[in-house]
Amino acid sequence: MAAKLTPDKRSAALASLHGWVEVDGRDAITRVFKFRNFSEAWGFMSRAALVAEGMDHHPEWTNVYSKVEVTLSTHDAGGVTELDIKLARAMDEIAA
Amino acid sequence: MAAKLTPDKRSAALASLHGWVEVDGRDAITRVFKFRNFSEAWGFMSRAALVAEGMDHHPEWTNVYSKVEVTLSTHDAGGVTELDIKLARAMDEIAA
Repeated sequence: MAAKLTPDKRSAALASLHGWVEVDGRDAITRVFKFRNFSEAWGFMSRAALVAEGMDHHPEWTNVYSKVEVTLSTHDAGGVTELDIKLARAMDEIAA
Repeated sequence: MAAKLTPDKRSAALASLHGWVEVDGRDAITRVFKFRNFSEAWGFMSRAALVAEGMDHHPEWTNVYSKVEVTLSTHDAGGVTELDIKLARAMDEIAA
């Protein structure tokens, strides 16, 4: 099972990502992705969904038209693990 | 432009849908859809996304693994219109 990252490791991982920040009051990370329209937002989500399903590690995410807000945390570990960093990095690459 | 439904028309429309309720403190309707897993939830969202894009009327929705929470309101009208009822009905049919 993936283990929760130490604060130092989590800070280092966050610094290597794009626009991800810690969630207030919860051991999780979040990023808002903005696109030009729903079609682009949906394209991003579709590609990210395939990655998530392949990892068997899924995001919490909200979509409102061109905006996608993603929160990542590993339920079994009770916090942010390498799985979350890996999925965040994949999402960054898809959105890039 | 779609006009906001009167309270009577909205109540009648809600009664004809499955599990949709009014949102507290906001002129909008909401339903939680539950599936067996992420794959099924994603299948529902993908089909609903095609309908929404075809209508040029989009949901606000949150997905957490097998659960999809949808909120519908028509931004331009400042409340629930026939567009929302139509999209809600399509989502009910997809999920049925």
